[in-house]
Amino acid sequence: MPEDKEKDYWVGFDLGGTKMLAAVFDAKFKQLGSERKKTKGHLGVEAGLERMIGTIRSALEEADIDDTQLLGIGVGCPGPLDLARGVILEAPNLGWENAPVKKTLEKEFGCPTVIANDVDTGVFGEYRFGAGKNERCVLGIFPGTGVGGGCVYEGRIFRGKTMSCMEIGHMQLLADGPRSGTGQAGSLEAVASRLAIAGQAAQAAFRGQAPYLREQVGTDISKIRSGVLAAAIENGDRVIKQIIVDAANHIGIALAGAIHLLAPDVVVLGGGLVEAMPELIVETVNKSVRKHLLPSFLDTFEVVAAELADDATIKGAAAWAEVEFRETDSKS
Amino acid sequence: MPEDKEKDYWVGFDLGGTKMLAAVFDAKFKQLGSERKKTKGHLGVEAGLERMIGTIRSALEEADIDDTQLLGIGVGCPGPLDLARGVILEAPNLGWENAPVKKTLEKEFGCPTVIANDVDTGVFGEYRFGAGKNERCVLGIFPGTGVGGGCVYEGRIFRGKTMSCMEIGHMQLLADGPRSGTGQAGSLEAVASRLAIAGQAAQAAFRGQAPYLREQVGTDISKIRSGVLAAAIENGDRVIKQIIVDAANHIGIALAGAIHLLAPDVVVLGGGLVEAMPELIVETVNKSVRKHLLPSFLDTFEVVAAELADDATIKGAAAWAEVEFRETDSKS
Repeated sequence: MPEDKEKDYWVGFDLGGTKMLAAVFDAKFKQLGSERKKTKGHLGVEAGLERMIGTIRSALEEADIDDTQLLGIGVGCPGPLDLARGVILEAPNLGWENAPVKKTLEKEFGCPTVIANDVDTGVFGEYRFGAGKNERCVLGIFPGTGVGGGCVYEGRIFRGKTMSCMEIGHMQLLADGPRSGTGQAGSLEAVASRLAIAGQAAQAAFRGQAPYLREQVGTDISKIRSGVLAAAIENGDRVIKQIIVDAANHIGIALAGAIHLLAPDVVVLGGGLVEAMPELIVETVNKSVRKHLLPSFLDTFEVVAAELADDATIKGAAAWAEVEFRETDSKS
Repeated sequence: MPEDKEKDYWVGFDLGGTKMLAAVFDAKFKQLGSERKKTKGHLGVEAGLERMIGTIRSALEEADIDDTQLLGIGVGCPGPLDLARGVILEAPNLGWENAPVKKTLEKEFGCPTVIANDVDTGVFGEYRFGAGKNERCVLGIFPGTGVGGGCVYEGRIFRGKTMSCMEIGHMQLLADGPRSGTGQAGSLEAVASRLAIAGQAAQAAFRGQAPYLREQVGTDISKIRSGVLAAAIENGDRVIKQIIVDAANHIGIALAGAIHLLAPDVVVLGGGLVEAMPELIVETVNKSVRKHLLPSFLDTFEVVAAELADDATIKGAAAWAEVEFRETDSKS
């Protein structure tokens, strides 16, 4: 490597339930290269970590950056996590347990690596670059395969001691409601995740109440994704709209609980479902949450749609690595 | 005043639903004098502020400290509050609105005054001097006339921008449950505050199911306080025990939601009810909360009883004034 090569680059990584993304950024967070692969969680932890390395290698190659030019890697992961050791403790939607992400990537790329909850890094991205720019307290809710939450409080990700937090999807709404993937009865995730919505939409399609959806994708929930749900609503499947409204109402109830605790200034709603129908979901959540709040909270926050889409997590993860490792540098 | 008089004293104040307390502390938080009066919220804001001034005057007199020796006053108030302006926006249990506490006390005593939610100051007291000493994240829950919550995160009270937060009593548990004093249907406060418990206990007494309680205080809920509830349980009123257990179970459900968001290291339960029957309530809440958590959260926290009783809020309020005003000094 020529000695004059600049060493001021960051990698952001987004390990999602269905896809993984890596991107390389310069010091001003301009994106220089990226790569996307399917996650294939069912292949297990070891194969998954290999896929992560390969994805980062491809992004570095596209950006024409060597390992030695990296200042750090930030990884947004599904939780719960052991943040100190950089291990994914359990990721039910991937079927993973005890995945040593930090150790694996530090060994491979020779630079410091920080992991954080993927929603936390997404909210941090929206806080630094998007819909919650520089606000004192930003709460993010991302309905996806599950329903994730994250909070940036006074410039930093709000965190647990050895694990993530803001697990809004696991707040209980219904005493004896349906179970989510983690076995919690009546949790928000069990009634308002994209999976839960797809499960209800498939039943409507099966019963013949959602003819457009049935014609497009049948009754297989793995084919009932955000885009086709939005298209079904536009094409007159009114029961699908009601399913989305019900889910958004439930998000509003859980959000009211979170607002009573955290008093955020901005609530950012993101993820594929929200991107596919931002107005319907943002408006419905906004109405629902206000039915369940103390009056004095009503004028203290805004509910807005995320602005960065898939970029939020990778860009936020890279920016969070900068917060962690620039600070460590300045202390030493 | 002689010129050599030391100026290193703090006043802590606890404005409760039924009583108000003031205490004077030296720099090491040794208590030098105190006073207690009934709050008499029904007399209104102006009379209430006069009573506060009188209570502080009496405590100063007992401590033999002049106004000019005070570095600051910290006041724990029922919320929601406008922290920046130091105003109680609404205190439903007092019937107060827009009470200018900070301005009134600063004018009277000539020293800086900070207000905070009374539970926040209580939790700060437990964090500095009691059951959550120096822990990274302490969540407090104080079932009283309502059900208050507070959080000390990395050494500071977690706060909203212009108001308090951690209003765990207003989290919704039951979609169409009973209403609390603030009109929230199915909130924790509506099913687990001391008032809600007293309401149920009075019904049991009326129906003849709680003979000891009925004999002691009849069916007037203003006489059904924590001590007599504990005595009723000891004297065989099993239905009273069930009412307390039900309330503690509901606290556990709301607490699970809060733990999923905040991932605290210690959960401190305090207030009169808990003091009257700490084992029953702590154990029941501890069992209940663990039924509603993701497995990875189970070993991350302890549930403990508060240690400082009535001292928590006054001592915490004084210590919080020190954090606020010593820091301001060092910055200027």
